Amino acid sequence: MNKYSFLDDYSEGCHPDILNKIIETNLIQQTAYGFDEYSNEAKQLIKNKMNNQDSEVFFVTGGTQANLIIASSILRSHEAIISVDIGHILAREAGALEATGHKIISMSSKNGKLDTQIIQTALENHSFAPHMVKPRLVYISNATELGAIYTKKELEEISRFCKENSLYLFLDGARLGAVLCSKYNDLSLEDISKLTDVFTLGATKNGALFGEAIVINNTKLVQDFNINIKQRGALLAKGRILGVQFLELFKENLYFDLAKRANDLAIKLSQGFTSKGYKLLDKNQTNQVFLILPNSLIKHLEKKFSFSIWGKYNERDSIVRLVTSWATDEAKIDELIKSIDLI
Amino acid sequence: MNKYSFLDDYSEGCHPDILNKIIETNLIQQTAYGFDEYSNEAKQLIKNKMNNQDSEVFFVTGGTQANLIIASSILRSHEAIISVDIGHILAREAGALEATGHKIISMSSKNGKLDTQIIQTALENHSFAPHMVKPRLVYISNATELGAIYTKKELEEISRFCKENSLYLFLDGARLGAVLCSKYNDLSLEDISKLTDVFTLGATKNGALFGEAIVINNTKLVQDFNINIKQRGALLAKGRILGVQFLELFKENLYFDLAKRANDLAIKLSQGFTSKGYKLLDKNQTNQVFLILPNSLIKHLEKKFSFSIWGKYNERDSIVRLVTSWATDEAKIDELIKSIDLI
Amino acid sequence: MNKYSFLDDYSEGCHPDILNKIIETNLIQQTAYGFDEYSNEAKQLIKNKMNNQDSEVFFVTGGTQANLIIASSILRSHEAIISVDIGHILAREAGALEATGHKIISMSSKNGKLDTQIIQTALENHSFAPHMVKPRLVYISNATELGAIYTKKELEEISRFCKENSLYLFLDGARLGAVLCSKYNDLSLEDISKLTDVFTLGATKNGALFGEAIVINNTKLVQDFNINIKQRGALLAKGRILGVQFLELFKENLYFDLAKRANDLAIKLSQGFTSKGYKLLDKNQTNQVFLILPNSLIKHLEKKFSFSIWGKYNERDSIVRLVTSWATDEAKIDELIKSIDLI
Amino acid sequence: MNKYSFLDDYSEGCHPDILNKIIETNLIQQTAYGFDEYSNEAKQLIKNKMNNQDSEVFFVTGGTQANLIIASSILRSHEAIISVDIGHILAREAGALEATGHKIISMSSKNGKLDTQIIQTALENHSFAPHMVKPRLVYISNATELGAIYTKKELEEISRFCKENSLYLFLDGARLGAVLCSKYNDLSLEDISKLTDVFTLGATKNGALFGEAIVINNTKLVQDFNINIKQRGALLAKGRILGVQFLELFKENLYFDLAKRANDLAIKLSQGFTSKGYKLLDKNQTNQVFLILPNSLIKHLEKKFSFSIWGKYNERDSIVRLVTSWATDEAKIDELIKSIDLI
Repeated sequence: MNKYSFLDDYSEGCHPDILNKIIETNLIQQTAYGFDEYSNEAKQLIKNKMNNQDSEVFFVTGGTQANLIIASSILRSHEAIISVDIGHILAREAGALEATGHKIISMSSKNGKLDTQIIQTALENHSFAPHMVKPRLVYISNATELGAIYTKKELEEISRFCKENSLYLFLDGARLGAVLCSKYNDLSLEDISKLTDVFTLGATKNGALFGEAIVINNTKLVQDFNINIKQRGALLAKGRILGVQFLELFKENLYFDLAKRANDLAIKLSQGFTSKGYKLLDKNQTNQVFLILPNSLIKHLEKKFSFSIWGKYNERDSIVRLVTSWATDEAKIDELIKSIDLI
Repeated sequence: MNKYSFLDDYSEGCHPDILNKIIETNLIQQTAYGFDEYSNEAKQLIKNKMNNQDSEVFFVTGGTQANLIIASSILRSHEAIISVDIGHILAREAGALEATGHKIISMSSKNGKLDTQIIQTALENHSFAPHMVKPRLVYISNATELGAIYTKKELEEISRFCKENSLYLFLDGARLGAVLCSKYNDLSLEDISKLTDVFTLGATKNGALFGEAIVINNTKLVQDFNINIKQRGALLAKGRILGVQFLELFKENLYFDLAKRANDLAIKLSQGFTSKGYKLLDKNQTNQVFLILPNSLIKHLEKKFSFSIWGKYNERDSIVRLVTSWATDEAKIDELIKSIDLI
Repeated sequence: MNKYSFLDDYSEGCHPDILNKIIETNLIQQTAYGFDEYSNEAKQLIKNKMNNQDSEVFFVTGGTQANLIIASSILRSHEAIISVDIGHILAREAGALEATGHKIISMSSKNGKLDTQIIQTALENHSFAPHMVKPRLVYISNATELGAIYTKKELEEISRFCKENSLYLFLDGARLGAVLCSKYNDLSLEDISKLTDVFTLGATKNGALFGEAIVINNTKLVQDFNINIKQRGALLAKGRILGVQFLELFKENLYFDLAKRANDLAIKLSQGFTSKGYKLLDKNQTNQVFLILPNSLIKHLEKKFSFSIWGKYNERDSIVRLVTSWATDEAKIDELIKSIDLI
Repeated sequence: MNKYSFLDDYSEGCHPDILNKIIETNLIQQTAYGFDEYSNEAKQLIKNKMNNQDSEVFFVTGGTQANLIIASSILRSHEAIISVDIGHILAREAGALEATGHKIISMSSKNGKLDTQIIQTALENHSFAPHMVKPRLVYISNATELGAIYTKKELEEISRFCKENSLYLFLDGARLGAVLCSKYNDLSLEDISKLTDVFTLGATKNGALFGEAIVINNTKLVQDFNINIKQRGALLAKGRILGVQFLELFKENLYFDLAKRANDLAIKLSQGFTSKGYKLLDKNQTNQVFLILPNSLIKHLEKKFSFSIWGKYNERDSIVRLVTSWATDEAKIDELIKSIDLI
């Protein structure tokens, strides 16, 4: 890659501390298939951070994998998922959940978030049994695909509505680190553990080589979950490599330190643009910065940097996405901001 | 783990050379989802080793994952797989292939190998259309689940039969390294690439943290294979970590050196027992040693070593499996053999 | 049912001529599973009506069954279906197609019809491989769920676009009889057979006890289709009962006579309302009449007739659907129209 | 068909009484999708015959359809079915249950029946979680594929074992009529309703055009079952046609009278052969007669009659199957028996 990339938060390997832990433990024999001592310890650490000993934690390698296992393990054949139309499971997972036989009910949303009114509409639109699937699993991403976060009040309302309507609530936390370290956030891991039936805690985008923790809070959903992990080809023989990474991330505060750094750099980056009069698509809450930039500026910046063109904004402007991470070189942000003036 | 383990070939991390390559490349930005330069280079190396530029190579993390993606990508809904009853897809993958909708036709076999006569029987037993699935994919493991290997003549016959009967041939090479380095083997990677429609080349059990290369030789089966990888949750965001490992394994001769070491240690281990009058279940061809041992001896050995009890042999004896690997400590084999006399 | 029903076109049994044929053939022994002489003859008659001897015809009992078998037989795992959002497969089939593992891409449409521009948009929205399903099957209903029909020009354009873009075109003809006998229609069975890869010819809603003919025009899609019928539980042991019904419907002109009668009664019914100043939602083209009626009138009519409330139109009015069929009692239409004045 | 057929019990249409009821009710408007009054009444009659008002009854058209809906509605993704290897779901349903994602564990059995010891073995063979599916549904056919029946004691033992091991018991009663009217039978419908979680009551092979009643005795399995029927394409728009048939069969004693006639004719047929010194494969218990006949005699009989060659018995003899039904012409049995001497 000749240009410096702000394309995503997974262009580098893993944080050096994690790599050191891999090196340190590399030749110690361990039980296979996730029953190693590192995985056990890491699971306990996550339970402690959530202040919830009743939940169960499972580690898999990726987000799509986590999502499809959760849906296929929890749902009966005729039960469906509710998601906003830009939800990752609808837009970027190649039909992974449908391939397990489940329909995803696509709901439009102004800001990319789900709320109780939208869920209510989905229920009403699917009340004509037996001609329709039965909505059963509510899927939300936090942060959303547009980098926004749910407030505690929003999540509480959704959670309450789901309980009242026999719906399971699943929070996709591929970028939950960035959420928990956002200055706008008022949700704790403990809150999330209480308010959802299941959520994921992503490490791929926050310092690890790969790894998503699946946290099941509704104990009725735990039984045989591990067989479902195996059935979907997600049980690593050397599960230790997942355990070691989560162990290092949660032993002290590394998971949160890395997320905070990514967020801080996103703020710096977004302020670099706004201070020069360019507009954000929405306020910058996590490590994804969505900007409305003139096409001429975009062309100019693309000479030295890579980032995503998210779509057309108007004849003159486009929406671009720039992503920061634990690994972002701060000097490159300075350079990028400086470049703005050199057009 | 208090005892030294001969349970499997995945109780340790990865070979230090691989770890060093991960360290060396860790902070270099790379394109995500397997389009990184390490993956590209590693794929080319494998093509070169096969002396076949027309095949396509894909990397995934595990064997069950590879197997289910291959079946679900290749087969139409009503098409079935033929396998011996001890085949990994039938015995140890939690219904992973059936979960994609395909039946596996289970065939008994005296020695754990498939041959043209068994396949012919499977075809005859499934000729009553439209009341039966259509056998389409022939699955063999090399090495087999009992550590045996296919000769070139055997594979040629199966391959010819498959072509004549419009069957695809899939060779599961989770332990193909051990095969290629067996003193009984007369198959080259080039042979396998010519004789099969698709095969896997396993690294998890031969030095890597994880990783199976899927090699598609039948070019008609390549189209959109990558979407199927994504759909099954097997596309790593940081695909680089797969690329780097295969790159290191195939850059020089590491893949083969490691397999040879495991095989040599298996020979040493099996000779340690046979020299004292104990019998092998079958001749030792790869890195899995199956022994018939008195239950009293087993109990004695279990004090300091762990290994698998494969089943009952007779009232006095059981079948045990001991597995060696690139990481096996040779001194522990000496110790194990010495222990035999101390009962 | 105390009230006379305009709810649907399947509230009665079958046309007496069909019943007579069932009686006449009842005790004659026939080969099972659709290989009976009546089925063979009926298939030939349909081929003759299409003037196309290369297509293959299969009979199943229902529309959802036909649709799911077609999708699961034709598509590879990662391939998806394009449909308008009100399409029967999306709105009324309880996730039947998703249950076979395939995503349906839901597209909005002003009039409930698909056109090349909408399909083009669906393709563009799903071009980000390998993160997205691959659109492969274009699904249209003729008549649409709103009773409208496709013109020959419209179908030709869609057909051409599909061929150019490697898409299969599937026309759901659950109410194709009503289409072919509509005064607005300019499509022949022969046209449809030339322009689509596969279509269904519905009899359930046009005189039979049940029965949909699946017509496969793209000969590449025929192989093993019958096994897929069996695999989905749709192969009747006494397939003769499907054969007999289609035989009677297509031996002479019964299929078309019945559809014409239903359409004529729909015209009479709609004119009964429009002549009194009430408005149609759209022009009445087939046997489904969509009217905008005051809620007070609806309440009044519901005392003696049953029909569907399709949705709210405004504060005062709702949209209702009244359906006629071959079995509709014309006197009841007179009575219904007379009732309008008695409010 | 030029020859008289003893191939199966579905070569004719339906019993004239059923046909008359179809004629009689044909033009009466009814609610669609199985909510008609005939279906309601028929369900009540079946509950009364079982002396069990808590079970729920659903009607579908065929046995494979019933079996796949039951499995896919009841089971979670990783749960498997236990069946003897000649079970219909394994041998004759084109992978229908696997197509819904579930593995069927195939168990060999000397007489084609399952017993607690075989089930116990299946459990033991699948105890290595998470690498194996979890057996959950026990499938038995009564009558078996070889025409044999389960005694009350046998069914009680299986039922008790299933309850003790958290297994659901499913009895496939495609030919349950023949069982209940067998002189060897000591099971009542009430017994079956108490001893199984779900069973089917077949009408296709006992007088109807088609139709299987699914009886769910375990009330936890009832919820949303109807959506699963719809999702698998098995919900007839004119469900009345199923209701009418079951109504006529169970209003009085028709279902049992027809089965008894078929059984009696089977006895006559088998005695015709045994009285001339030919041997039955097993004692004749229902309407399927399995005989060991010399190949020369088979050739001779095939001139005027059709029946199935079940397999080779020895060099001189083969096993043949002859099936009687409610519709069998008794004179043809006389003719067949007479033919034996004319060789």
